[in-house]
Amino acid sequence: MLDALADAARAAILPHFRNGIAADNKAPDGFDPVTAADRAAEAAIRALLDEHRPGDGIVGEEDEAKPSRSGRTWIIDPIDGTRAFLAGLPSWCVLIALAEEAGPVLSVIDQPHIGERFFGSTGAAGRSAHLRHAGRLTPLTVRGGRSLAGAIGETTDPYLFEGAEAAVFSQVSGRARLMRYGLDAYGYAMVAQGGLDFVIESGLKTWDVAALVPVVEGAGGILTDWQGRPAHGGGQVVAAGNADLHGELLEVLAVAAR
Amino acid sequence: MLDALADAARAAILPHFRNGIAADNKAPDGFDPVTAADRAAEAAIRALLDEHRPGDGIVGEEDEAKPSRSGRTWIIDPIDGTRAFLAGLPSWCVLIALAEEAGPVLSVIDQPHIGERFFGSTGAAGRSAHLRHAGRLTPLTVRGGRSLAGAIGETTDPYLFEGAEAAVFSQVSGRARLMRYGLDAYGYAMVAQGGLDFVIESGLKTWDVAALVPVVEGAGGILTDWQGRPAHGGGQVVAAGNADLHGELLEVLAVAAR
Repeated sequence: MLDALADAARAAILPHFRNGIAADNKAPDGFDPVTAADRAAEAAIRALLDEHRPGDGIVGEEDEAKPSRSGRTWIIDPIDGTRAFLAGLPSWCVLIALAEEAGPVLSVIDQPHIGERFFGSTGAAGRSAHLRHAGRLTPLTVRGGRSLAGAIGETTDPYLFEGAEAAVFSQVSGRARLMRYGLDAYGYAMVAQGGLDFVIESGLKTWDVAALVPVVEGAGGILTDWQGRPAHGGGQVVAAGNADLHGELLEVLAVAAR
Repeated sequence: MLDALADAARAAILPHFRNGIAADNKAPDGFDPVTAADRAAEAAIRALLDEHRPGDGIVGEEDEAKPSRSGRTWIIDPIDGTRAFLAGLPSWCVLIALAEEAGPVLSVIDQPHIGERFFGSTGAAGRSAHLRHAGRLTPLTVRGGRSLAGAIGETTDPYLFEGAEAAVFSQVSGRARLMRYGLDAYGYAMVAQGGLDFVIESGLKTWDVAALVPVVEGAGGILTDWQGRPAHGGGQVVAAGNADLHGELLEVLAVAAR
């Protein structure tokens, strides 16, 4: 089912990518872009779910929530990283998660232009994560054993942090070996892949983060909020490749955690 | 010849990508990483040039310059974006430019993991740029007609600017519609592709920038230093999709130009 949903989104989005697409602004002050590609992809996913999983709930970024009658809910962001999409950058992703009562158990992070599809599983089906690319399926494993001083970290936009959050971000980035920027969900896929050691972000919505949890945790990583609690509902998020680094990050982030 | 050189670099680099490669630090203070993949790719390119273009000069990031006897010089950066490479991010590029007395006239920006190869030409062969991806060759054309207030800009690392440069960067990013980060040469390819409207950077070396010029200018864009002079030698660089935007940027950048 995950593949069918991701394929439908891919088919709806790719014709619009790098094709002069216009953005509507959803924010009354600021710039929160949404495009025809976002809307078409979410509609395509919802149509498949309505047909094949009529009892399941749906929570998506671009349309109203559909209540669950089965206990299962699909949480979808048709294009995570709409800003990157508008700039022609291949780091936007389609995010699709299947959640049970306790949280997401199965998910996909899909990057159609590159042709990378990251799968994660943390439920009864077992804990694992894989990348399918160029016809090959390879297991994903986080990189272990790096303390903050040796770590490569990432956040989507360093200027999104304000006040106490900006102060702790500055501490974290000053202590890390290297920081990267601008990746949205793709950064979490890179934690699962073992290239990045951590990601810290704030202000996420449940559709931004639900699909990240099975991929990061299926690969052996940890994803929580800044107090160490489950983060699939959104808010302040920290993902790390190992428990020691995650603990080190929580210590610094604590003063800005809420 | 460009394809053969880029193919050789690709073959030398890809086996190392996302494969636990270690970095040596070239900087006495700070972190200027170089990997076995950088060195192997530059050696592969140099071997082909020594064989097929023995009279041409070579300037590369990882080895000594070879003087030109033909009037032509190849300027190469085997992996531009080594930090992205180390983080597993597919935004690093192989940069290869062929320069005559007046500057670069032919170049390639290659991203082997995605399979995107950007070609540029500005010399006697005519002014054009193309992208080869998934077996298709498509012309590259900048996006015209956007002023700074409507533009999407990019810089590799906003924290690399200091003093007067940091002040003008802050002005530019505050006036732009949207900023993206972290792309190295790939950002200039996106200006040529029409996704980004401008890139501003500082402290570039000639191997960072030579291959960008034919791609950006072949697609109809402009690439200069912050005073509007040719920038293929490195230093402060601004690339823009159209002349009006380029002029608007030069006005802001002027106070920090040197």
